[in-house]
Amino acid sequence: MDAAEFRKRGKEMVDYIADYLEKIEKRQVFPDVEPGYLRPLIPDCAPQKPESFEDVFKDIEKIIMPGVTHWHSPYFFAYFPAASSFPALLADMLCGGIGCVGFSWAASPACTELETVMLDWLGKMINLPEEFLAGEDGQGGGVIQGSASEATLISLLAARTKTIRRVQSEKPELTEADIMGRLVAYASDQAHSSVERAALIGAVKIKNVSSDDTFSVCGSALKKVLDEDKAAGLIPFFFCATLGTTPCCSFDKLLELGPLCNKENIWMHIDAAYAGSAFICPEFRHLLNGVEFADSFNFNPHKWLLVNFDCSAMWVKKRSDLTGAFKLEPLYLQHHHQESGLVTDYRHWQIPLGRRFRSLKLWFVLRMYGVMGLQEHIRKHVRLAHQFEHLVLQDERFEICAEVVLGLVCFRLKGSNELNMALLKSINEAKKIHLVPCHLREKFVLRFAICSRTVESTHVKFAWQHISQLATDLLKTWEQSHHQQ
Amino acid sequence: MDAAEFRKRGKEMVDYIADYLEKIEKRQVFPDVEPGYLRPLIPDCAPQKPESFEDVFKDIEKIIMPGVTHWHSPYFFAYFPAASSFPALLADMLCGGIGCVGFSWAASPACTELETVMLDWLGKMINLPEEFLAGEDGQGGGVIQGSASEATLISLLAARTKTIRRVQSEKPELTEADIMGRLVAYASDQAHSSVERAALIGAVKIKNVSSDDTFSVCGSALKKVLDEDKAAGLIPFFFCATLGTTPCCSFDKLLELGPLCNKENIWMHIDAAYAGSAFICPEFRHLLNGVEFADSFNFNPHKWLLVNFDCSAMWVKKRSDLTGAFKLEPLYLQHHHQESGLVTDYRHWQIPLGRRFRSLKLWFVLRMYGVMGLQEHIRKHVRLAHQFEHLVLQDERFEICAEVVLGLVCFRLKGSNELNMALLKSINEAKKIHLVPCHLREKFVLRFAICSRTVESTHVKFAWQHISQLATDLLKTWEQSHHQQ
Repeated sequence: MDAAEFRKRGKEMVDYIADYLEKIEKRQVFPDVEPGYLRPLIPDCAPQKPESFEDVFKDIEKIIMPGVTHWHSPYFFAYFPAASSFPALLADMLCGGIGCVGFSWAASPACTELETVMLDWLGKMINLPEEFLAGEDGQGGGVIQGSASEATLISLLAARTKTIRRVQSEKPELTEADIMGRLVAYASDQAHSSVERAALIGAVKIKNVSSDDTFSVCGSALKKVLDEDKAAGLIPFFFCATLGTTPCCSFDKLLELGPLCNKENIWMHIDAAYAGSAFICPEFRHLLNGVEFADSFNFNPHKWLLVNFDCSAMWVKKRSDLTGAFKLEPLYLQHHHQESGLVTDYRHWQIPLGRRFRSLKLWFVLRMYGVMGLQEHIRKHVRLAHQFEHLVLQDERFEICAEVVLGLVCFRLKGSNELNMALLKSINEAKKIHLVPCHLREKFVLRFAICSRTVESTHVKFAWQHISQLATDLLKTWEQSHHQQ
Repeated sequence: MDAAEFRKRGKEMVDYIADYLEKIEKRQVFPDVEPGYLRPLIPDCAPQKPESFEDVFKDIEKIIMPGVTHWHSPYFFAYFPAASSFPALLADMLCGGIGCVGFSWAASPACTELETVMLDWLGKMINLPEEFLAGEDGQGGGVIQGSASEATLISLLAARTKTIRRVQSEKPELTEADIMGRLVAYASDQAHSSVERAALIGAVKIKNVSSDDTFSVCGSALKKVLDEDKAAGLIPFFFCATLGTTPCCSFDKLLELGPLCNKENIWMHIDAAYAGSAFICPEFRHLLNGVEFADSFNFNPHKWLLVNFDCSAMWVKKRSDLTGAFKLEPLYLQHHHQESGLVTDYRHWQIPLGRRFRSLKLWFVLRMYGVMGLQEHIRKHVRLAHQFEHLVLQDERFEICAEVVLGLVCFRLKGSNELNMALLKSINEAKKIHLVPCHLREKFVLRFAICSRTVESTHVKFAWQHISQLATDLLKTWEQSHHQQ
């Protein structure tokens, strides 16, 4: 395919994508396929000779779309939102066209420099303390990671290196293996599974800290476990606080936890993957109070800030903590400017070496929406969540299971877990909307997350009427089968 | 921006990208900017109100392009190629439009299933042993990682878990910390820095194995260090073999190393990041002989197979080795089908949780080029490398520093490292072409990598004439300053 054909096909693809997104409502949100559906539909091996674009293009509707879960359908209320917007799609096209691999400043200066400045813009939008910004000569700064999991891992690894060095300087008799064997990381019992995974990868112990009855970790809970572990000879070194937990969007108490971590020489990382985007609204910014005590902070514009996946924003107060943990410099990656102190080589800030020009997406989205446009998007989602909450509360068969702070509503039928499992099953089998569950303590709970950019009040009302009707149908059979027993 | 405006702007962007790539030759391959150039060109913070697409669009040429290193220029001969093709760009647009996050089968069945089948296609194209393929009920299979660094890390971590479990079952008296402290990984002294980094992250020792005078690791070199380390009580557990090293594209001797690793219970991972694409040509496939002894294998279609970054293909013989090392299952990520044994949840195969629909790029590229089209691309690059080698060999001032097997030529002026540093400096300051150096033992060497999809014989000839002229100029001044001393 040459440039001339690309001009033609690219425009067809633009129209296909616009059509897809404009009419996504008409597609069934969750597919009908069974595991293994795709393999029989396509050949066993790649063709020897080129096929035409038309041949490939017609297979999109025939082979791919029947197996797609439509994350941008206004009937999608599962997981958390995956951001999508037209400015981000345009920026991603440009990113692909330029196609540079920005592992160092020299590999494409614009790719590195725009990223640093965009992370400053974004940091200012959520009013991050100055120390986290790069500015012209700051010690901190931001970086785009692929996912919050990577941000958590990177911060845990940086904390591990930093702590090993500190302990070795204090107690030179200890070997690195001795210290490693005593290190212990902490996170809420509500924290994302990626925190436990980061500890697994980093080969350090991790312990759950009990959350309170609002599913938040408070200072005393952390202090209790720290005291026990220190008495047992362990070395606490890392605490991952969560703002907006995945099960129910609860918030750890930074203002209690932060000073404690600082006092105990524990690296505090804040994972605000979903909730972070809301901090651009002044009325939600108080949820971030205490970030000043953290060493690193992360949230995902690719969840809720209209920047297509992947774009996970991470900031650190001391960039040397990251680069100190990872820096390796083979000659083929060295360049003229790197010792000037002026350049950032982002390869030292992340797990992969290569990186795409992802800051273009931030630049396009922040400029074409403006801060006010993005605030409007966040506020609409929060409003719709409260609308759903209100509908649930009016039906006395149901209960709300956690405070609705942002765009997530956790709810259930009053009754057994089996009953609620059956309700979720009937919802997801009907495939008119899509939800996923969670556990809150011993309770099986349904999560209703406001997700799509285009979801409106009518979709929320429809979803509630549908759930309510399915509950009525279910309760009828449930009571009958109960009576028969 | 609504769908109607996206239709218009998307088409403008398609034309912009087509123009950029069609006329890329006219742009200076390496930018003139100094570190810090970008910040003064843009505002301090994000705008409150939306800006128009026109405003953003005109800043691409004004602010971004002056700082771009043009990786797809036919005058770019640095690092290794970054793949780019029009079918891949189209597929990436579609990937963005669908915008699903495929961390599990249920999160988008097509995303998972196309990936599994495409990795089978690709595996068959390079004639990987059956055990690495997923098929309908295989124990192995492929996955798309973001980078070879991640593939190396994942395989090292899987090997670490597997070895700890084995040693613990053999010697229950050893703690996990005891075993960790004795684990040791190996790679060639020519291996990529990401291998050392993987060991750093995994908190295990790593040792260099000396390469021979062709920069390859042979069996006896590995055996020697294994014997020493075992005698010292260490536990060798992982060897990363490289096919196509970054400095000079040398090849470790798999047929000697593989049986040794198998005998010693050492996980052999093969990193063929650059060279792997060439194995689709029968005449280069012999370089992969011995892969049958490996536990995992990786190469980057995003380097040399016309699939835009990122698309790093990784295969394992036993998928349970990966999932066994990482599997964590919170309720909100569980789904109906996962216990059927029929589905793949790729989140257990990788570091991040989220993943894009990257297999669309493979599907588009493999079909629209066909195997023969891709073979032609590889062969053209190898032919051009030999053309450059031939030109170097005709000039007795120069020497070739390593065998030219694929698309990389390592060369230098006969003489001191300082002389060659000066030559590289004059090449990169002229900015007509772009190269990076490497060290081969004590020698400072220039790397000439055939990179661009559109590079032709004329560009190679131009590059050589230019280098040759700069060498003439340099040698004149060099001799004068030598005489004056």
